[in-house]
Amino acid sequence: MSHSELEELIRQFSKLPGLGPRSARRAVLHLIRQKDRLMAPLTESLSQVMATIQTCHVCGNLDSYDPCSICTDARRDDAVICVVEELADLWAIDRCNLFRGRYHVLGGTLSAMDDRGPNQLNIASLITRAGKPEVKEIILATNATLEGQTTAHYLMSRLEDCNVLISRLAQGIPMGGELDYLDDGTLGAALKARLPA
Amino acid sequence: MSHSELEELIRQFSKLPGLGPRSARRAVLHLIRQKDRLMAPLTESLSQVMATIQTCHVCGNLDSYDPCSICTDARRDDAVICVVEELADLWAIDRCNLFRGRYHVLGGTLSAMDDRGPNQLNIASLITRAGKPEVKEIILATNATLEGQTTAHYLMSRLEDCNVLISRLAQGIPMGGELDYLDDGTLGAALKARLPA
Repeated sequence: MSHSELEELIRQFSKLPGLGPRSARRAVLHLIRQKDRLMAPLTESLSQVMATIQTCHVCGNLDSYDPCSICTDARRDDAVICVVEELADLWAIDRCNLFRGRYHVLGGTLSAMDDRGPNQLNIASLITRAGKPEVKEIILATNATLEGQTTAHYLMSRLEDCNVLISRLAQGIPMGGELDYLDDGTLGAALKARLPA
Repeated sequence: MSHSELEELIRQFSKLPGLGPRSARRAVLHLIRQKDRLMAPLTESLSQVMATIQTCHVCGNLDSYDPCSICTDARRDDAVICVVEELADLWAIDRCNLFRGRYHVLGGTLSAMDDRGPNQLNIASLITRAGKPEVKEIILATNATLEGQTTAHYLMSRLEDCNVLISRLAQGIPMGGELDYLDDGTLGAALKARLPA
C-alpha cells in the first residue's frame, strides 16, 4: 500500500489491546466509510481527552480536571475512601452504583518480583488522607490475588495508627456461581465467612 | 462514572467493529496509560487522516490525495485495471504485491435485494477508463459470491464494445486447502479449471 497516512493509522490502531493488523484494518475501514458519523466524533473526543487528561493529585484518578470530578463531587461522602489498585478497578466499582464515597488509586500493587515497593505507589498520600478528621472508613478494595492481598495487608499495618475503620471486600461465591465449578479457594473462603441465614 | 470526556471516548471506541463496551474501556485505559507513546500518535494520525482523506475521482480509492497515490504512481502499469468491489479488496490485492497495474473501486455490487443498480456504482467511470487507448486489460476481481459474480457478468456485457481483454481471478483450491474439507462448489470449479501438469 502506498496510502501512507492510512497505513500509519492502521498501525496505530493495531497497537490497541484486542486488535491485530486485520481488525485494525477493519476498524479503520469502518471509520473512513462513516467519516462524519464515526470518525469525526472519535477524532474530536480523542483530541479532547488527549488535551485535558491528567492525574488527580488527591486520589490518583485520571480525569480532565485536577482535583478530579469524583474528588470535587459535593454529593459524595468524605467519610469513606475506597482504595483500589488501578483506574480500571475504580471504574468497575463505580459502575455498580453502590459506592458514593471517595476513591484512592494506588497505581499498582507491591511486588517483590517487579521490584515495586511502597514508594512506587500512592501510599504516602493515602496515609495523609486517612489522618484527616472527616475520614471514618477506608475500604481496601485490592484484587483477590496474592499481590493484591499482600498490598492490603501492608496498608493495614500502615493505617493502624490512623483513627479509621479499615474494611475489605467480602469474599465468597460470585452471583450465579455453581458450587461444582468453583475453585477450592473461593469455596473455602465462602464457607469460612458463612453468615446466619 | 462522572469522567464525561473519558466516557464519551469509550462510547466512541465501542462503536468500532470487534469492540464492545468492555474492550473499548480496555483500549482507552491502555491509551491513557501510555499517553505519549500511544495516545498522542494515534490522535495525530487520526486527525491527519480525518483532515486529508478523500475519494479519488479516477478510481474510487480513498487516499490523502486526489488523484490517489496509486493513480499517480508512475511505476505502475496503465495497461491493466483491476476492478474490485470495495476498498478492503483493493488493500487485500495490493498486500500480495503481485499486481502493479491500476485499480477501480466499484463501491459495492449490484443487488436487487438492496435496490442497488448500476448507477449507484462507479461503473460509468470504469467504461470511460476502459475506452482509453493505453488500457489493454481489465481484471474483474469481484468476490466469488452470487452478487460479486452477477456484477462481474454485468460488467462483461458493458465492456464488450471496448477493445480490451477482460479477465477474471482464477477459482480453485486455496493454498493449503485439504480436499476433504473443501465445499463442493470450490472442488467442482477446481476440477473444471484443471490444468495440464
